[in-house]
Amino acid sequence: MALPPLDAFRFVLVRTSHSGNIGSAARAIRTMGFERLTLVAPHRFPDPEATALAAGADDVLGNAVIADDLVAGLAGTTFALGLSARRRGVNIPELDPREGAAQAIAAVRRGEQVALVFGNERTGLENDELSRCHAMVRIPSVDDFSSLNLSQAVQVVAYEIRMALLGDEAKPVETEAVDPDEVPADAEQVERFFTHLGETLDDIEFHKGRSPVTIMLKLRKLFLRARPELRELRILHGILADAQRMAEIAKKRD
Amino acid sequence: MALPPLDAFRFVLVRTSHSGNIGSAARAIRTMGFERLTLVAPHRFPDPEATALAAGADDVLGNAVIADDLVAGLAGTTFALGLSARRRGVNIPELDPREGAAQAIAAVRRGEQVALVFGNERTGLENDELSRCHAMVRIPSVDDFSSLNLSQAVQVVAYEIRMALLGDEAKPVETEAVDPDEVPADAEQVERFFTHLGETLDDIEFHKGRSPVTIMLKLRKLFLRARPELRELRILHGILADAQRMAEIAKKRD
Repeated sequence: MALPPLDAFRFVLVRTSHSGNIGSAARAIRTMGFERLTLVAPHRFPDPEATALAAGADDVLGNAVIADDLVAGLAGTTFALGLSARRRGVNIPELDPREGAAQAIAAVRRGEQVALVFGNERTGLENDELSRCHAMVRIPSVDDFSSLNLSQAVQVVAYEIRMALLGDEAKPVETEAVDPDEVPADAEQVERFFTHLGETLDDIEFHKGRSPVTIMLKLRKLFLRARPELRELRILHGILADAQRMAEIAKKRD
Repeated sequence: MALPPLDAFRFVLVRTSHSGNIGSAARAIRTMGFERLTLVAPHRFPDPEATALAAGADDVLGNAVIADDLVAGLAGTTFALGLSARRRGVNIPELDPREGAAQAIAAVRRGEQVALVFGNERTGLENDELSRCHAMVRIPSVDDFSSLNLSQAVQVVAYEIRMALLGDEAKPVETEAVDPDEVPADAEQVERFFTHLGETLDDIEFHKGRSPVTIMLKLRKLFLRARPELRELRILHGILADAQRMAEIAKKRD
């Protein structure tokens, strides 16, 4: 399935106090492939602090739309999700970020424009702002320390949307070229290794009265779990051969 | 299913340059219910900037463990996931954060201690650090702007683990007795084995002009994949000791 237009997703920051958070949010959405940022009544913007923390996501900052209030900020959108740290009196559906991402993508696939709305750092979204959203998204933080930094919340939501988009993309059949050297060795190759290992243990006088059978079963279990590749078996054969060579010299000189 | 012990998850920040990121990371993990932070060779800590950005997650900062290097930072853990923004030369499994969270939780449910490892802001994890991890986690950022802020990456990983834990909570209860000898060996025990293996390869004159580093990385990958138990490591140590003994006799008689 092809990616839907990424510019149909708009991140809306409402009454942000710290310019640094605007920069960090710009960087966060840019890493996940998004570019549209709307700033509703930002405390201070543009600001060098925002630019510094955008860490190169200058296009996002430069193209940011400034709006006086949320109604203006939502202009053109048809579906809005409002982030909230707390359960609230506003009676709209509450989603976790994964459910929110799924609904946002479904809307964009229907041709809609979607807004992800984040409130002020300290006070969050006002009830009248939340009531302009179609659903509330709550990141499932712990009760006794529930407040994520603003840009962290933006990152989580952007990440969830990207994960869902990539998941959609992967749905059709996918073929992948495999390097024959990188697949696990076949049963015969592995058996040859175990035979060589057993011979080497005899040569270096490892058993000393213990049961070779039990030890070999344990080593077999260990190496089968690793599922060695052919080139790894070659290294192991080389090590065994050198240990055997040392044992042979040692015994010749005995 | 009950939540597994949350203190079995350890967030390890390696060579962090900016103290603010340590504070933001502490806040990020605290919002998701985690408390254990290990700082490997932090540039500056404690630092007022860290405290400011922790925004009240003072317990996490106050209890942070400082380690000199990653081997020390991983002490006691048996499963480590290393974050990386790029696909890398180190050939270990690459997971997305959701897959990584699932594997981390499975390990903790088996009684293991798990480390989530994050590199320096600019340079990430070094290859030798990544090679101490059992798998690499890559947050699926876009190719042309791939670098998340450090604390954002921490937030995403902590969030994914929490989401998976909350999802598990609904599942039926499952209890399983664990034989302490049957859990994977911890990071220090595995490092001791690799040291012994390296010495033995030297003693039996395995390298013959080839790079010991490359060979050791390949062997490391093979054995980390097998996740050896302590009793299996004991057998391997015994084999190495006998090979060394043969090499010693061989050389004495030369």
